Amino acid sequence: MSLLDILTQKLEEKEGRIIEMRRYLHAHPELSFEEEKTAQYIADFYKDVPVDKVETNYGGGHGVVVTIKGAQPGKTIAIRADFDALPITEETDVAFKSTNPGVMHACGHDGHTAYMLILAETLAELKSELKGTIRVLHQPAEEVPPGGALGMIKAGALEGVDHIFGIHVMSNMETGKVFYRAGNTQTGRSYFKLKVQGKGGHGSSPHTANDAIVAASSFVMNVQTIVSRHINPFDTAVVTIGSFDGKGSFNVIKDSVTLEGDVRTMSDESRTIVEEQVRQFAEGLETSFKVKSELEYANDYPVLYNDPEVTGLVQEALEAADFAEILETAPQPPSEDFAYYLKEVPGTFFYVGAMPANGEWYPHHHPKFEINEDSLLISAKAMAAVVVKFCG
Amino acid sequence: MSLLDILTQKLEEKEGRIIEMRRYLHAHPELSFEEEKTAQYIADFYKDVPVDKVETNYGGGHGVVVTIKGAQPGKTIAIRADFDALPITEETDVAFKSTNPGVMHACGHDGHTAYMLILAETLAELKSELKGTIRVLHQPAEEVPPGGALGMIKAGALEGVDHIFGIHVMSNMETGKVFYRAGNTQTGRSYFKLKVQGKGGHGSSPHTANDAIVAASSFVMNVQTIVSRHINPFDTAVVTIGSFDGKGSFNVIKDSVTLEGDVRTMSDESRTIVEEQVRQFAEGLETSFKVKSELEYANDYPVLYNDPEVTGLVQEALEAADFAEILETAPQPPSEDFAYYLKEVPGTFFYVGAMPANGEWYPHHHPKFEINEDSLLISAKAMAAVVVKFCG
Amino acid sequence: MSLLDILTQKLEEKEGRIIEMRRYLHAHPELSFEEEKTAQYIADFYKDVPVDKVETNYGGGHGVVVTIKGAQPGKTIAIRADFDALPITEETDVAFKSTNPGVMHACGHDGHTAYMLILAETLAELKSELKGTIRVLHQPAEEVPPGGALGMIKAGALEGVDHIFGIHVMSNMETGKVFYRAGNTQTGRSYFKLKVQGKGGHGSSPHTANDAIVAASSFVMNVQTIVSRHINPFDTAVVTIGSFDGKGSFNVIKDSVTLEGDVRTMSDESRTIVEEQVRQFAEGLETSFKVKSELEYANDYPVLYNDPEVTGLVQEALEAADFAEILETAPQPPSEDFAYYLKEVPGTFFYVGAMPANGEWYPHHHPKFEINEDSLLISAKAMAAVVVKFCG
Amino acid sequence: MSLLDILTQKLEEKEGRIIEMRRYLHAHPELSFEEEKTAQYIADFYKDVPVDKVETNYGGGHGVVVTIKGAQPGKTIAIRADFDALPITEETDVAFKSTNPGVMHACGHDGHTAYMLILAETLAELKSELKGTIRVLHQPAEEVPPGGALGMIKAGALEGVDHIFGIHVMSNMETGKVFYRAGNTQTGRSYFKLKVQGKGGHGSSPHTANDAIVAASSFVMNVQTIVSRHINPFDTAVVTIGSFDGKGSFNVIKDSVTLEGDVRTMSDESRTIVEEQVRQFAEGLETSFKVKSELEYANDYPVLYNDPEVTGLVQEALEAADFAEILETAPQPPSEDFAYYLKEVPGTFFYVGAMPANGEWYPHHHPKFEINEDSLLISAKAMAAVVVKFCG
Repeated sequence: MSLLDILTQKLEEKEGRIIEMRRYLHAHPELSFEEEKTAQYIADFYKDVPVDKVETNYGGGHGVVVTIKGAQPGKTIAIRADFDALPITEETDVAFKSTNPGVMHACGHDGHTAYMLILAETLAELKSELKGTIRVLHQPAEEVPPGGALGMIKAGALEGVDHIFGIHVMSNMETGKVFYRAGNTQTGRSYFKLKVQGKGGHGSSPHTANDAIVAASSFVMNVQTIVSRHINPFDTAVVTIGSFDGKGSFNVIKDSVTLEGDVRTMSDESRTIVEEQVRQFAEGLETSFKVKSELEYANDYPVLYNDPEVTGLVQEALEAADFAEILETAPQPPSEDFAYYLKEVPGTFFYVGAMPANGEWYPHHHPKFEINEDSLLISAKAMAAVVVKFCG
Repeated sequence: MSLLDILTQKLEEKEGRIIEMRRYLHAHPELSFEEEKTAQYIADFYKDVPVDKVETNYGGGHGVVVTIKGAQPGKTIAIRADFDALPITEETDVAFKSTNPGVMHACGHDGHTAYMLILAETLAELKSELKGTIRVLHQPAEEVPPGGALGMIKAGALEGVDHIFGIHVMSNMETGKVFYRAGNTQTGRSYFKLKVQGKGGHGSSPHTANDAIVAASSFVMNVQTIVSRHINPFDTAVVTIGSFDGKGSFNVIKDSVTLEGDVRTMSDESRTIVEEQVRQFAEGLETSFKVKSELEYANDYPVLYNDPEVTGLVQEALEAADFAEILETAPQPPSEDFAYYLKEVPGTFFYVGAMPANGEWYPHHHPKFEINEDSLLISAKAMAAVVVKFCG
Repeated sequence: MSLLDILTQKLEEKEGRIIEMRRYLHAHPELSFEEEKTAQYIADFYKDVPVDKVETNYGGGHGVVVTIKGAQPGKTIAIRADFDALPITEETDVAFKSTNPGVMHACGHDGHTAYMLILAETLAELKSELKGTIRVLHQPAEEVPPGGALGMIKAGALEGVDHIFGIHVMSNMETGKVFYRAGNTQTGRSYFKLKVQGKGGHGSSPHTANDAIVAASSFVMNVQTIVSRHINPFDTAVVTIGSFDGKGSFNVIKDSVTLEGDVRTMSDESRTIVEEQVRQFAEGLETSFKVKSELEYANDYPVLYNDPEVTGLVQEALEAADFAEILETAPQPPSEDFAYYLKEVPGTFFYVGAMPANGEWYPHHHPKFEINEDSLLISAKAMAAVVVKFCG
Repeated sequence: MSLLDILTQKLEEKEGRIIEMRRYLHAHPELSFEEEKTAQYIADFYKDVPVDKVETNYGGGHGVVVTIKGAQPGKTIAIRADFDALPITEETDVAFKSTNPGVMHACGHDGHTAYMLILAETLAELKSELKGTIRVLHQPAEEVPPGGALGMIKAGALEGVDHIFGIHVMSNMETGKVFYRAGNTQTGRSYFKLKVQGKGGHGSSPHTANDAIVAASSFVMNVQTIVSRHINPFDTAVVTIGSFDGKGSFNVIKDSVTLEGDVRTMSDESRTIVEEQVRQFAEGLETSFKVKSELEYANDYPVLYNDPEVTGLVQEALEAADFAEILETAPQPPSEDFAYYLKEVPGTFFYVGAMPANGEWYPHHHPKFEINEDSLLISAKAMAAVVVKFCG
């Protein structure tokens, strides 16, 4: 029996514990950057597990990094599971519903953590058969920029690491299928806030004022040209102005307006173009309308880039393991702070179908979000196959 | 001694009472449509005055209409004084400061009422010398649309009236000067509210939503063309969008936006053009952007139009009376509900300089607004000259 | 008999010659700056007239300045008649139709010159009765910027001149009426040309190009805010972009666009505001869209300002002379280079009704433009009254 | 020796003739829809070739359809080569330069035809070994909408055809490599022309006119929102307004403007969205600005869609044949009328690298465009492999 077969068999035997742990976590969600008890739960789990090192309060937050050293030399790989929840009031009917009002595991991070704990335990049990080192990254605060990944990296989570891997369970993908994609796979995200400061005045005397609403409206129209004229049509970018805060009195010329915008891109090139253009238009308002533009522009999660070569190896490993249908996926609109790790070391982030058995699914971040728990064992097997591919 | 000389002499003798009454009213201001005590004060005043009729609660509000019949037949004229105050906290240092917190006579209506009461009393005393009928309109609620004038008219205040006259004291015009203007003199005013209803959505998926901020911004830009391209350059119009209520979350496409606008015009023609264009642009949004446009459009105070012939006669009367410098004025930006009366009967609305003696003045509706009380006797003499011209 | 009566009687006797000369000039029109033969005709006329000086080729062009000195000392006044024609093919049926193909006196300058020659001759005949000096300015090139007036002024036409007067016959004003206006009376005019230089490219690859049509369209929209938001609503300004030269191939991104604009204002203040704003928007295009903006901006004819005091005296003189109805006119949209003279010395420019007897009239610059020739004697009498007022 | 080996060997032996014929065609280019002599050259070639049928003047133009019947029953496939040239003056230094001034084979269709003739001849020689029927489509007029493909289809070129295949040689892809892509591969194209009819007028009187330049500029700005807000960010669409024909006189308000636009899309869905939106904005101009919008909108070449299953089989065949490196390509911006065939029957259009040996290449449609003639034998071998796959 091969190492992967043994590993797989052990995971199958432990499926009940994965589910049990996931349900516990589901019932006890904590918000990003506040995951104290969840981190303690994770640390407690490892007390009796023969891993080589457990580092807590990692990365300036609630991170937990676990090291498992194989008996033989080899590569060092990192495998990551995030564990924060969302500020959402759960509306499902599950027995293990959130007991923390207004907070909910509505993105599947409870499942990520549960499968990862059991996988880590099993890898530790088999470490005499492993080559190299496996570093398990239990990462907090994926949901809220700047995200937990940056702190983990800063604290050294990727030191000496050759490759990194992560999984996301997906309620909108069929259970029993696993999806990969090479290259740019999830959008990068930026945020901007523009305060347009004109000069107030009486509605009947516009010449004594400087109308901020007109200047800001011109900005909104100009911004449309970024995607329509400056982005490669075969690339992807979105610029949304989601807030135009210009409420005032109908007969008073508005002195100032604040706009807030959201940017999504699928390449660093487009990300740079959007930022440049937004800056130009903000500056152009000053020149054209003599208003004052105060622009705050922040690039947060980068484009998630899966290394093609590593992704190819993962695809091979998954196909060879033969426990699910392995498919290529289209790019994914959301942003993910796993992208920061992939900026540092080649790796891949892939997707495990978790659609409920009846086919009725709610999107991630929805109060009725649910996953098919079969996806947890699949996740464990999938990551096991990857580990064995690189460290078996 | 001519009738006007006698009238003038009597008014001069009563100047102290005018000022005293004005100060009482100043200390006891009441908001538009709530002027119960002020109306009572006015009605009480007439108890011992030999007028022919006093009608109270006139026009569905607190209006008081007083009829003075001359001994001989002649024209019927109306003379109007408004008496409401404003929701402003007074910041002056006068001894007779407002005793009603948050309410202030910051527009001079206290003075209008005081001079008018004394003038009415004096006219009543001299009615044997008068020809025709004088109707004194004590009008409430000038400051707040739809204004008190409409109710007065509806109740019959102008029935049988040949001409109507009104005065406004002006803190920005020099005391000792009286100003007239024929034709369109004060702006008309309209108000609109546009709700642009699109469809919300996630910032990264604009194609599944319909961005209300973009549609509304396009409307703001289009609206600029009303004044720039559709109004006669020798006429006057202003269209201000004073409120763009589109506050939302930066990464959510905004589903709806509410705009509020203020329109000022100096002719019925331009008023009509602006309304038509605003309606077209609102409808055009529906066609162009497939949003839903809910437009509320209200024309309130019309353009104030002084009949040229009547104004010429008033100018003559004022010049002949020789108690002040009589000058033509430029058009005035604010709107006035006296304009409604002038839609019904030919008349004129004119201005009495009331700038404080030291030349330091605050605009109307300012918490530090003050008038020079010398303007009250001048107002009384000016209106007396007009009355004698038409009914002397 | 008063001097004016004698003068008037002589003019009446000479009416046939005025008309004859006007018809000759009408049949022989010459374009602005090319009026060689017309100037010769004028100079020839004066050969036998007892004027004091005739200066030809005045002002660097075809100007003719004639000096008539009164017997007694007094004021020096200038009276001006322009004599250029337009590049229009005449479509009238008059017997004295243009014999110069494509050129037409379609603005009445033929009439101005004819009445002025006869008036000058008559004044010269009566110079023993005159006080002061009359300078007759026969000015070329009124129709085409920079206009002939500037050259006349530069050459000294206004040296020692106290006041200047001019008349325009008006096809849209009733014959038998003369119109005056004090203050700002005809619009000032500016011209601009903006070349927006982007970068061409294939229609399917906008990101490799820089679309000049989009940038220029944004400029057009921005420009609408000048009049709608920056001009005093009680003043007058018009900004028209009359040319958007962006013709190209549908599937090639346009590299450059040229816009041309026309500006009309009724005050120096608004003229300055428009220029500043156009410059700002042109510069703002560079900042916002990274195009190159090449802006050419020229203020030509200023606002025509009639001195109120002098205009009052002219009004008095005209009313006293009692040969026509004297009325105030509204401001006039066209621009006039007479405005340059009025920048230098106080004077007035006024209007003589010249509508054809049947009431059917064509606007100035129309191929069917005609005047009622009765207006010529009226013009002569009107200017005679003015001359006598100041130098009689 | 396998059929493909024999076929390949024969093609290698005939490489000289391919090149010779391509050079002849290169020297004698003809414009789209005018390819009379080229069609004759093709027809002449087949005179001595044992094909089963040669149909000329096919599809209402200069099409030539050749039928080769295999000895055994099987599938019917079509293989297509286009043969028109472009209105470009050649600027290369090749010995076989265009002898037809102003016309040039600057897109490689000469090569397509040459390899296809020799391949057809060889297939005819081997028809006893073939199963099914091969229809060779020599298609004219690929370069100019509506394209030659439509006529061919209408005339029956695809009747009974199971699959269709085509090749394009590519100057920007390395020689020795062949590229395939499944799904939407080349953009579809649409064209529109919008006449915006307002009303002219004098620059100083905008209220009497209706400014077409302002309305058209608003349209240009609105159109930017199609791509920025209505297209799925993971799909591709381009809307370019390449022509804004609004040249006029600076001081005359423009009465009408004509815009011309080019649309590129990569899916029928986006194609439909763009058309709908352009129509809405054109109609919205009528509502908003009361202009008249005359819109002409034509969808020409559709999105080129390669059937995934068939493309997979082609990929297999090419990889198995082992004569070049076989790679997936990114989508291609240009449009191709081969897309019409693929709307009718499943097939694939693929790319043969033809970059000059020195690596210096000019884009297609460039006056210095050249191909590496090694690409012609590779094309023949590639299409041979495909034929054998489906009819071997």
